[in-house]
Amino acid sequence: MSSQEFFYRYSCAMNIPLRNQPRVVIVGGGFGGLELAKALRDAPVQVVLIDKNNYHTFQPLLYQVATAGLEADSIAYPIRKIFKRQRNFHFRWGEVKEIDPAQNVLRASIGELTYDYLVIATGATTNYFGMEAIARHAMPMKTVTEALNLRSLILQNFEQALLTENVREQEALMTFAVVGGGPTGVELAGALCELKKHVLPNDYPELDFRKMRVLLIESGGEILQSMSEVNQVRAKKYLEELGCEVWLHSKVADYDGDAVQFQNGKMLYTKNLIWAAGIRGLYIAGLRPEAVDKRGRYLVNAYCQITGYERLYAIGDVACMITDKYPNGHPQVAPVAIQMAHTVAENIVRELKGLPPKMFVYRDRGSMATVGRNRAVVEAFQIRFGGFAGWFVWMALHLMLLVGFRNKVIVFINWLWNYMNYDRNIRLIIRPYFRNTR
Amino acid sequence: MSSQEFFYRYSCAMNIPLRNQPRVVIVGGGFGGLELAKALRDAPVQVVLIDKNNYHTFQPLLYQVATAGLEADSIAYPIRKIFKRQRNFHFRWGEVKEIDPAQNVLRASIGELTYDYLVIATGATTNYFGMEAIARHAMPMKTVTEALNLRSLILQNFEQALLTENVREQEALMTFAVVGGGPTGVELAGALCELKKHVLPNDYPELDFRKMRVLLIESGGEILQSMSEVNQVRAKKYLEELGCEVWLHSKVADYDGDAVQFQNGKMLYTKNLIWAAGIRGLYIAGLRPEAVDKRGRYLVNAYCQITGYERLYAIGDVACMITDKYPNGHPQVAPVAIQMAHTVAENIVRELKGLPPKMFVYRDRGSMATVGRNRAVVEAFQIRFGGFAGWFVWMALHLMLLVGFRNKVIVFINWLWNYMNYDRNIRLIIRPYFRNTR
Repeated sequence: MSSQEFFYRYSCAMNIPLRNQPRVVIVGGGFGGLELAKALRDAPVQVVLIDKNNYHTFQPLLYQVATAGLEADSIAYPIRKIFKRQRNFHFRWGEVKEIDPAQNVLRASIGELTYDYLVIATGATTNYFGMEAIARHAMPMKTVTEALNLRSLILQNFEQALLTENVREQEALMTFAVVGGGPTGVELAGALCELKKHVLPNDYPELDFRKMRVLLIESGGEILQSMSEVNQVRAKKYLEELGCEVWLHSKVADYDGDAVQFQNGKMLYTKNLIWAAGIRGLYIAGLRPEAVDKRGRYLVNAYCQITGYERLYAIGDVACMITDKYPNGHPQVAPVAIQMAHTVAENIVRELKGLPPKMFVYRDRGSMATVGRNRAVVEAFQIRFGGFAGWFVWMALHLMLLVGFRNKVIVFINWLWNYMNYDRNIRLIIRPYFRNTR
Repeated sequence: MSSQEFFYRYSCAMNIPLRNQPRVVIVGGGFGGLELAKALRDAPVQVVLIDKNNYHTFQPLLYQVATAGLEADSIAYPIRKIFKRQRNFHFRWGEVKEIDPAQNVLRASIGELTYDYLVIATGATTNYFGMEAIARHAMPMKTVTEALNLRSLILQNFEQALLTENVREQEALMTFAVVGGGPTGVELAGALCELKKHVLPNDYPELDFRKMRVLLIESGGEILQSMSEVNQVRAKKYLEELGCEVWLHSKVADYDGDAVQFQNGKMLYTKNLIWAAGIRGLYIAGLRPEAVDKRGRYLVNAYCQITGYERLYAIGDVACMITDKYPNGHPQVAPVAIQMAHTVAENIVRELKGLPPKMFVYRDRGSMATVGRNRAVVEAFQIRFGGFAGWFVWMALHLMLLVGFRNKVIVFINWLWNYMNYDRNIRLIIRPYFRNTR
């Protein structure tokens, strides 16, 4: 196809300059979106990335922001800065509301924009599975703002625990229930245990820290379901040694902000229910309903094209590609998003050259989760290990993956500091969090 | 006085433990409040510090948070952590609403508390001199939250400038007017000029940065009025070399969010009016009206006792002590607060020992202001200097004064990074700021 074909459809919307090149619009600056924009650096296309934040969030470390170990600003990175030398790149800060595939246009809070190729890389949000009371009262942890809210709530509840003379209320304020035994839940529960062991007792010498409980709540029969049994058992042991209560086969039925009701009839008083039990795709309105599965993901073919569309792609957490090996779609993790981004970038370039597209094949390089100080479980290249070696690998890999040298240095210094001093420094309630005002 | 006298009045409010010692309550964890609590470390008293934030703010660097040079978390420090080894110290997170001097009790958002000595160290807030429109539309910069709001607004307005096709609106979005030629205004204007010169053009290659204007607006005839003429002229020259327009004799009369009206009839279109033109004391309700001056400060005697009260003290920005040398009260700067804290601490101990109190004498160690990269003006011990030497002294002193080793390291690394790379990394809109929702 000649590039002339594309020209006439352009509008001046969003003040994106007119170019005599096809326009690739990417929605979302997560792992997938960024990688795709970078991969198109030398392609004969104009790249426009739209995100509702002006920064990329390094989600794997959000739990450390929530537990006062890292400043938010060290795991967020300004998107414009990443691309400041990429000539064919444009960023716009806005929220995409709707896609009109018939007209090749998307509608956002900041105006409309036509596209030649549209790649949806919006990722996922917390899934409450329709339980409204939980959505209202539990704390999610998928964005920087949510992690900061959680940090504020944890500290506020300790301040409150100091003041109350009601023992049950005090215990509820000091009880932290993390729902969801995936890596996020495991890492967060571990970090909360460390706060209990090393940090908070110094801040609140007037409180009896035997009253502080950390629970990891999982509806299934094991934690870290995607891992091998040896690591599942290991992670559970690590957590229990840290003082975490691991409740398996415990499905949450309801929560009113004070008490958790379980389906098995149990009850737990807590003012802190952290919901890491599931995610759903952040799909955008406008496409055929059949293109979206029940977990909010776009059904895509082996080229990441959304079912029934040609120049509409979805990658990462918001895509569901069903294969023999992954009958429920690929795992919703960063490496899938990054690898899908490469596939899409290559296929766009191939199409412009008149070549047939290549199929996506996921190369699983393993997974890992850290459990507090000195401990982690790692599975990579058929090897499974844990303990200090796992923890060291976990740290090194996360430092490597962080965007930006300054952020790497700041995170490294914080980790070194926290490790040597058994400390978490960022115990700041900068914007207090109150449930009613959400 | 025997310590038995104090005992009967205690209540269990705020769960402060009962001690057979006089209770000193300090309101405010700024420079003065912290210093006082520390100075009472070994005194035979119970110390209770109440603050509406759970952290101390290093206000001299707020302008660097607002201009994306430093993360907020590196200039804020958790108060509990500072005092974790001080046995006679208790912190409570709450806002004091009222003092009842007849009953020696203060009323806060978290309950009531009796005191034997009460020291008000609440500091100051922005003074709009009764101009409501300005209070509604201008941006203050006295707290961490306000600095973060300003950071968001600056970045949001550049994103907006990209989208508009209205030239006048675009210019208004890219015009930054800082009102007030004191050190805060000068330093902020300098930092904005650096953003214009080195940072923002990389982020927004599509914008014409000749349209970006930074103005420092001063109602009087010179900037840095507390300094010598040679440094006033020097600072003005530095600012103008950086591209800042310094408007003297320009008194702001009104602002509607779009246009500034001046008393001399001039007008300026800007969406960014930053108000650093004055402060007023954050006095608390409940005392005799005669004890408060028209700038919201408590009138205090030479011992920092509030006029007409004996065990009620005020220190720092919220105190006005009139002396021959300072007929309008002492300068509202950190060293005055710190030195007053020492006087009060000493006098409380002396009173408990039956000794007469000592008078406060301010030892002025000088003042300084930095103007962008490599430049500052310094006056200390009869010496006046500027340029690179001044800038170096400014940096070293601020690093020394920052609370906490971790914060010193993080700030130092950021400065080194920013200096070497002509960069400001924290260009994040983490919580967007919208005027209407304030």
